[in-house]
Amino acid sequence: MRPTAAEEARTLVAEGRVAMLATLTADGGPWASLIVYATLPDGTPVLSVSELAEHGRNLQRDPRASLAIAATGGDGDPLATGRVTLAGAVEVAGDDEIGDAYHGFADFTRYVLRIERIRWVGGYARMDSPSVADYRAAEPDPVAPAAAGAVRHLNADHADALLDMARALGGHPEAAAARCERADRYGLDLAVTGPDGRAWARVDFAAPVSAPDGLRAATVELARRARAT
Amino acid sequence: MRPTAAEEARTLVAEGRVAMLATLTADGGPWASLIVYATLPDGTPVLSVSELAEHGRNLQRDPRASLAIAATGGDGDPLATGRVTLAGAVEVAGDDEIGDAYHGFADFTRYVLRIERIRWVGGYARMDSPSVADYRAAEPDPVAPAAAGAVRHLNADHADALLDMARALGGHPEAAAARCERADRYGLDLAVTGPDGRAWARVDFAAPVSAPDGLRAATVELARRARAT
Repeated sequence: MRPTAAEEARTLVAEGRVAMLATLTADGGPWASLIVYATLPDGTPVLSVSELAEHGRNLQRDPRASLAIAATGGDGDPLATGRVTLAGAVEVAGDDEIGDAYHGFADFTRYVLRIERIRWVGGYARMDSPSVADYRAAEPDPVAPAAAGAVRHLNADHADALLDMARALGGHPEAAAARCERADRYGLDLAVTGPDGRAWARVDFAAPVSAPDGLRAATVELARRARAT
Repeated sequence: MRPTAAEEARTLVAEGRVAMLATLTADGGPWASLIVYATLPDGTPVLSVSELAEHGRNLQRDPRASLAIAATGGDGDPLATGRVTLAGAVEVAGDDEIGDAYHGFADFTRYVLRIERIRWVGGYARMDSPSVADYRAAEPDPVAPAAAGAVRHLNADHADALLDMARALGGHPEAAAARCERADRYGLDLAVTGPDGRAWARVDFAAPVSAPDGLRAATVELARRARAT
């Protein structure tokens, strides 16, 4: 069991703070720039846009916009990193909709991006285009804020438990080593080294985790189950 | 003395490996996505583009493209981070031009971006639009690969020397503390805390540094000069 594309996209947007914005110049060409954003509870991004910046003038002229958000903290192959593109059109945000999602600066306009299309890429082989309805309905992964720390801890201090998991639960009984590459609410992705080289394994938690502090207990249960198998 | 906007832009492009690409969809809308790139000696980016990806199909239809590249490693305010936008049009790269700048993947096309316009933003108050000729002629800062490590080292082990610099050479004789925020070939940017609150100070090296391993000697000379003043 894995997060759906809609959940992956919602999680990337919820976890991010900086995005790249694509807008249209006066002659209809593309313009890429950096922007900070906040996220409303339904996954709608709120952009804080300087009217003095080129992208601010672009949006006043043509509201079409696209945001690209990449997972942070990856220090490996950037093309193996999760990222998502949202495309649609911006509208000036009303206070009733965004509340205090952004305490604006002077000379900044707050826009909401009305999403029309979504493309998620999880790495080389995982990609999908979730519907906007599915995206809005999906819950961001509650363990995402704790996942990077948990992965580091597992690799630093629990290599034996990871190897047990790969052998007993991950379908690699002859594994010689296992490294955790990613944790989400449903389980762990392991990179396994064995007699046939490197492979990926997925091990699922007994039940989906619903809060960041549930990740530890779910991982301990996985390790016990692997040892007992 | 500071790096020019052209030098700052060249340095950001030379140091980066991942960029956000803005292209045009079939209906002329903007599309933001992540891409990896290499840089030719004159600062021309070489993009490795999957023809299966939406941005690959976009570029086959309309070669107009824009790249946004942000400084890496900043863990503070993202709007205080240096970033640059390059805009122009792509052409399929010839082997004679790019040599081995990219060993391509299968299904990937290598494009060069012919830059027509450049926008550099160094943070809240520093920004400029260097000409393409100046950009091409500028040298990427040779100390950039070593700068982040040098800044960490100065702050961890040489707070006294930084304070001496701020007081004697940075125009803040009443400074109580100083932190290095940035190093470039021409000198250091210091964040100074004093009786009037926080301020910025710039201290210049005796001469521009021409290689990464020259940063240490230049900084030691600065510290000696500050102590002797």
